[in-house]
Amino acid sequence: MFYQEELRWAREAEALKPHLIHEMISTVSVVRTEEDSAVWQGWKIRPIASPEDIFNRELPHTWEYTFDFGRFCVGFPVLDFEFIGLFDAPFRLEIKMAETPCELARDFSSYHGDLGRSWLQEALIVEDVAVSTIRLPRRYAFRYLKLRVVGNFTYKVILRNVRCDTVSAADWSVIQPLGERYDELDHAIYRIGLTTLASCMQESFEDGPKRDRRLWLGDLRLQALANYNSFRNYNLVKRCLLMFAAAANEEGEIPGCVYPGTPRPKAGNYTFDYSVLFGDILLDYVNASGDEAGGRALFPVARRQTEIALRQLENSCFHYTGNYWLFVDWKEGLERDCAGHSIIIYSLMRTLALAQRLGLESETGEYPALIERMRNAGYRKWFDTSLGYFTSGRNRQISWASQIWAAFAKMLPKAEMRELLKRLLKETDVVLPGGPFLYNQMVLVLERYELHEEAYRLTRSFWGKMVELGADTFWEIFDPSAPMRSPYGDPIINSHCHAWSTPTFHFK
Amino acid sequence: MFYQEELRWAREAEALKPHLIHEMISTVSVVRTEEDSAVWQGWKIRPIASPEDIFNRELPHTWEYTFDFGRFCVGFPVLDFEFIGLFDAPFRLEIKMAETPCELARDFSSYHGDLGRSWLQEALIVEDVAVSTIRLPRRYAFRYLKLRVVGNFTYKVILRNVRCDTVSAADWSVIQPLGERYDELDHAIYRIGLTTLASCMQESFEDGPKRDRRLWLGDLRLQALANYNSFRNYNLVKRCLLMFAAAANEEGEIPGCVYPGTPRPKAGNYTFDYSVLFGDILLDYVNASGDEAGGRALFPVARRQTEIALRQLENSCFHYTGNYWLFVDWKEGLERDCAGHSIIIYSLMRTLALAQRLGLESETGEYPALIERMRNAGYRKWFDTSLGYFTSGRNRQISWASQIWAAFAKMLPKAEMRELLKRLLKETDVVLPGGPFLYNQMVLVLERYELHEEAYRLTRSFWGKMVELGADTFWEIFDPSAPMRSPYGDPIINSHCHAWSTPTFHFK
Repeated sequence: MFYQEELRWAREAEALKPHLIHEMISTVSVVRTEEDSAVWQGWKIRPIASPEDIFNRELPHTWEYTFDFGRFCVGFPVLDFEFIGLFDAPFRLEIKMAETPCELARDFSSYHGDLGRSWLQEALIVEDVAVSTIRLPRRYAFRYLKLRVVGNFTYKVILRNVRCDTVSAADWSVIQPLGERYDELDHAIYRIGLTTLASCMQESFEDGPKRDRRLWLGDLRLQALANYNSFRNYNLVKRCLLMFAAAANEEGEIPGCVYPGTPRPKAGNYTFDYSVLFGDILLDYVNASGDEAGGRALFPVARRQTEIALRQLENSCFHYTGNYWLFVDWKEGLERDCAGHSIIIYSLMRTLALAQRLGLESETGEYPALIERMRNAGYRKWFDTSLGYFTSGRNRQISWASQIWAAFAKMLPKAEMRELLKRLLKETDVVLPGGPFLYNQMVLVLERYELHEEAYRLTRSFWGKMVELGADTFWEIFDPSAPMRSPYGDPIINSHCHAWSTPTFHFK
Repeated sequence: MFYQEELRWAREAEALKPHLIHEMISTVSVVRTEEDSAVWQGWKIRPIASPEDIFNRELPHTWEYTFDFGRFCVGFPVLDFEFIGLFDAPFRLEIKMAETPCELARDFSSYHGDLGRSWLQEALIVEDVAVSTIRLPRRYAFRYLKLRVVGNFTYKVILRNVRCDTVSAADWSVIQPLGERYDELDHAIYRIGLTTLASCMQESFEDGPKRDRRLWLGDLRLQALANYNSFRNYNLVKRCLLMFAAAANEEGEIPGCVYPGTPRPKAGNYTFDYSVLFGDILLDYVNASGDEAGGRALFPVARRQTEIALRQLENSCFHYTGNYWLFVDWKEGLERDCAGHSIIIYSLMRTLALAQRLGLESETGEYPALIERMRNAGYRKWFDTSLGYFTSGRNRQISWASQIWAAFAKMLPKAEMRELLKRLLKETDVVLPGGPFLYNQMVLVLERYELHEEAYRLTRSFWGKMVELGADTFWEIFDPSAPMRSPYGDPIINSHCHAWSTPTFHFK
């Protein structure tokens, strides 16, 4: 449909590739893992030495040390060595990197998840000459780095330093300190949230620097918002929007994620609720950056996503057939019809607002009536007046997901919806979010309804709990009641620095 | 002593660095190891499929195949892949390479030798993009290559080819086929010997392409001789001689091995019986190549080694103090005095012959008398007239080592020595060689005494046994009665392609 434009967008995206900012970080401690059923995921970290106790000494034939960087690092481990005596055998070094104590403690060969084991971070280095610095060629995401040498019987090995050449497209110099009215927990959430966001800002926004290291549209929506209020790297958002636009299929549908590629990025998974919100992300971008020309160039892409989504309506109502991926949340058994319906309405609202912002109202002439019709149909189908909640599915499931998206879609008058949301926050017998992604949607919608205090309290309770449990960055998956929860069959494959978990846009 | 010359020799050596010849070799079979106490080292190889049965098909999530190249390879494994579907996780590949079935079958983590485990050949590859070819950056020496993929749950993997980009400084096009008068075993010994030699011909001669991958003077002496009669790469020998000369210490003593380095190569282990034979190697080189200018340039180095060796004499007899390394053979309990004495005499004889060849007799005026004096003293000290053999040590040990070197040194008249050698070959109650290095010295000395039939028979019996046991190349360590023998504590660290084991110079 847009093929010529797509090639142009691909070139524009390429031209916006950021220069990454490097910072060399040194390890701060030598540690070991200890089993402790009282701590999160059953493993804690115990410092056993300072790096200075290990560095600059002759190490034994066989040794293993775990270095703690004291913070989350995304980058290239840099190991400085000196070899004493003739280098008469190769130097063989096993390396393991981990985001969390549990991952660090686990033998990777016991991994039993259903994503590729290849995401677990390990390396085997064999050097034939006595290089003084080994810089790993692959980028890793970690706080802990384990080095192991087995059976070196020849020259003496001296470790001089253990560092990480960290990389990010985020410029910390533009960050304002958080005001005095915030307490220690707020400061921690702010700092950890910014670290999470910065760690995910690479050559594009990534969902997580350990896994999938990939540009996902649903994550981009949240991290772009966080970015406008912090690092303000508008070009990185623009580049990502262009990458999605350039990866559209022949119908003009954009994917849920993209892979770098030439002559244009390759489409990844199609994700209904991600694609349809392209206009929402574009509007946020235009509002934040003021780049109306950019908005105008990509407006047809936004409009096209809503057209494609509307095909799924029957009698003005959305019904999820299961033939494509409608994500909404990592939550088994979640009924998605009401949320899907509301997401389409919301996308029409936002695309309409975008057209108005850009003076393109003629392109969205039918939208106001369409939105009204869908709201009415949706209200009739899913709102249960006796329960006072939107339901979904045959069992009339009441979930946060349905209420959140109905609220975004303004399916009730503002005062009623405010009351519904406040009531919902106190319910225990409803389907709660599966994780940070949907908690973030709730915080966002509470802010839209000016329920600032509720948004603030939810942020402190949900993200504050991760802080309490020792998070260095915010986690892809977090259910306080289920430490080992993983949608992938094994918690060590979870990403513990994840874009959709960054809450920084709630602080000013 | 020679420091300015050393820098010049280092530059000359650098200028003679060979252009390696590449040949791409493909795997011929898919195999597995099977335990079998009836075979050498307890493991045999069973073909289970042809590569075509594995290639060009979608492989399962987890797979492991061992590829047999049907011949020994020294080079860079090249693996051709195709990935079907989105490359949405890194590709993680474990690789193991082995020279022998026993090494292939062993779990490397059970290694218990006293050389570095780093010599065992393994690699871990993690690719973040869907490359169609993975070429290992390190050079390996192997016949068997095992690939293992664990838990790839995403895209489909298709293996297209498994190859090795082999490298050698040996040019096979100059090799003459062995004449018709030789039988099948001779042809096998010839072919395997040449493969062994070619595999060890890299940027310098190496002792073994798996281990130590290094230029050793004792190995060079044997492989240079083999080379003159086969690949005739005179420049590679010259380059190696220059590297040794350039690595001499401030006394002018050259080491037993060298490491590449700038501004000059670095000295490795000092090995008495290696260094002292520099003149012998140089004479062989001048005779083979006709490069008298090169011989003249390096003559002072040869002469200096004999001077240094003579310091170890007392009353014209050598006594091994144990304060330095006198190798002679990998044989525990070997008494080395008589052999060491004879090696010095032989070095004087050969350096004298070199001087005569080059018209430098004035440099070796004292040599004839010195040789005569040492022969007489040695004869008196070590020859036992009643036993009819040279003995060594307090227990009057009779060894092949003592007789071989006494023969090189012409410690008896020719006829008597011929008779001694023939008699020795039939003895069972003497100290036999520890391995191929000393067997090779025996074959050489038998040839010098024109005992061609005996040399031929010994070659067929010793090297023929390796052929019978399935050797692809000749082994560093071989004792037919002790399959698991290793001077390093674990046979999987032994080099199974070793310069000092090449016997090709016995065939014309």
